[in-house]
Amino acid sequence: MNSINHQIRLAARPIGLPKPSDWELTTEPVPSPCPGEFVVAVSYLSLDPEMRGWMNASPSYAGPVEIGAVMRAGAIGRVIASEHTAFAEGDYVHGTFGVQEFAASDGHGVITVDPSLAPLPTFLGALGLTGLTAYFGLLEVGRPREGETVVVSGAAGAVGSVAGQIAKLKGARAIGITGGAEKCRWIVDEIGFDAAIDYKAENVSSALHLHAPEGVNLFFDNVGGEVLDGVLTGLARGARIVVCGGISQYNAQQPTGPANYLALIPARASMTGMLVFDYTDRYAEATSKLAGWLRDGRLISREQIVEGGVRAFPDALLKLFAGENTGKLVVAVQPS
Amino acid sequence: MNSINHQIRLAARPIGLPKPSDWELTTEPVPSPCPGEFVVAVSYLSLDPEMRGWMNASPSYAGPVEIGAVMRAGAIGRVIASEHTAFAEGDYVHGTFGVQEFAASDGHGVITVDPSLAPLPTFLGALGLTGLTAYFGLLEVGRPREGETVVVSGAAGAVGSVAGQIAKLKGARAIGITGGAEKCRWIVDEIGFDAAIDYKAENVSSALHLHAPEGVNLFFDNVGGEVLDGVLTGLARGARIVVCGGISQYNAQQPTGPANYLALIPARASMTGMLVFDYTDRYAEATSKLAGWLRDGRLISREQIVEGGVRAFPDALLKLFAGENTGKLVVAVQPS
Repeated sequence: MNSINHQIRLAARPIGLPKPSDWELTTEPVPSPCPGEFVVAVSYLSLDPEMRGWMNASPSYAGPVEIGAVMRAGAIGRVIASEHTAFAEGDYVHGTFGVQEFAASDGHGVITVDPSLAPLPTFLGALGLTGLTAYFGLLEVGRPREGETVVVSGAAGAVGSVAGQIAKLKGARAIGITGGAEKCRWIVDEIGFDAAIDYKAENVSSALHLHAPEGVNLFFDNVGGEVLDGVLTGLARGARIVVCGGISQYNAQQPTGPANYLALIPARASMTGMLVFDYTDRYAEATSKLAGWLRDGRLISREQIVEGGVRAFPDALLKLFAGENTGKLVVAVQPS
Repeated sequence: MNSINHQIRLAARPIGLPKPSDWELTTEPVPSPCPGEFVVAVSYLSLDPEMRGWMNASPSYAGPVEIGAVMRAGAIGRVIASEHTAFAEGDYVHGTFGVQEFAASDGHGVITVDPSLAPLPTFLGALGLTGLTAYFGLLEVGRPREGETVVVSGAAGAVGSVAGQIAKLKGARAIGITGGAEKCRWIVDEIGFDAAIDYKAENVSSALHLHAPEGVNLFFDNVGGEVLDGVLTGLARGARIVVCGGISQYNAQQPTGPANYLALIPARASMTGMLVFDYTDRYAEATSKLAGWLRDGRLISREQIVEGGVRAFPDALLKLFAGENTGKLVVAVQPS
């Protein structure tokens, strides 16, 4: 085993999109576990839109990543040494291990995963926080009813693709909003959305009036911006908007709010923010549901794997903000 | 009795604030009731922010006022002639009689009021749709709990001043946001808000962090714009925002949405639109509650009466959008 741990640290707070000089590649010796700790060799890094918020100084739900610190990231890996009673060498684990090849952990927030259930990257996708976010956001906050029209933005993305499939499993009609013909094809032909709207080629508001003439009952929003404004023009009475994210705004120096938000009044509609961490006591139940659907082929998890290790992280993150991913974007980490 | 009915009609759809040429003063003979109708002499006109939306061509919950039509307005008046079994000469009635001195009605949407309960203008204020909007918006949508911090914008206005007082009656702390020292004084010293923020002189966000360091549990918003954005920075976990109105946006040619709406995510907060018309079957119950509080001196209804009849309506409406009113703005109509 190589004794060097390569890491990506935050070098500067980005203005707008992160640029190469906002990152620093550092090396450290691979840590050894102190008593009560274990050390993980990271296999895959999770790339998530909220990473952009963590890079800002302003407080977010998770607090900022300090300048000079290893960039925060969810990851999946294998325990290579342990002085912890609950984690043994060879265990596969999920935790916030950061953008590095090796991480020491005291086990806080770490869960063991069963690699016989699914390929490892899926534990960052449908069987990870991504899938749980879709599950609880859609079912607990959005509460779709059979026959309702559910619209999902970022529908070819990690959370959106799962949310749309769960909506279908619950008997709703699912319309996905995404960018580009190929992603539209994928969500309809391969994962079963009833219709797709290409926000890069179509006017969201007009397209929605065509696909959902009786209005949108539930909107699961990962995007914000013009997409949200478009959907606000087509709400059914009593519509629920789940505010899961707003990726269009995360790099904006002047974020814009939904100019059409007063449409909430005639629609008697609501917009509600959610964070998956409120449902930790139900993760096991939901993961078992999601794993069952995956096993039965009723849920498709797609992960897009970027090779190149931690060095590939900065460019991969830009891919996410450019909407170039289909499904869950992960970086494969091979200690080098 | 004069036989001329003066009316204000919509002459053009305004761009931005309505200007004199958007209105036309017309005269007609005072109508006589057809069978099944009655005729009302209007006493007071209700001035409401939503009037601006009715002047647009775009559909709102009530549909646009057509060009050339008498401007829509809620009003209170006295039946002067009746061919209707449910309404007798001398009855005092509330209905959508329009900006005119006399109106014929078939009784649709008209209710009889008891002038011994309160002065007539109060039936357009705390005992009218204004009071009912505050009552149901606050209690049914916002659901304040004892000890919570409730913030009300437009707090010296018709709906806001009642909403804040009801919040206090329910054991919440009430902070009002309004414009100008005198309105701040009024809401604290005379109607019992715990604190006031003058949005013209103070930064709403900083002031809120001072007055509500533990965050806002419920925000009853009549204003939108920068005020809403300021409050979004100070939400407590699980906050509810009642979207009752957005007067700052009604005359804007480029409405702006709340740029800070993603604060709903870390706060797990919601924004919900409401219309009082969903509660018609409970108007009687609520009116009786409101009348009881008024009688006991626990609720103060203030009406600001503009003299001058229907001719005074166009300028009075501008007063409303300039925030020059304290309490409910009404126009006194004296047939001339």
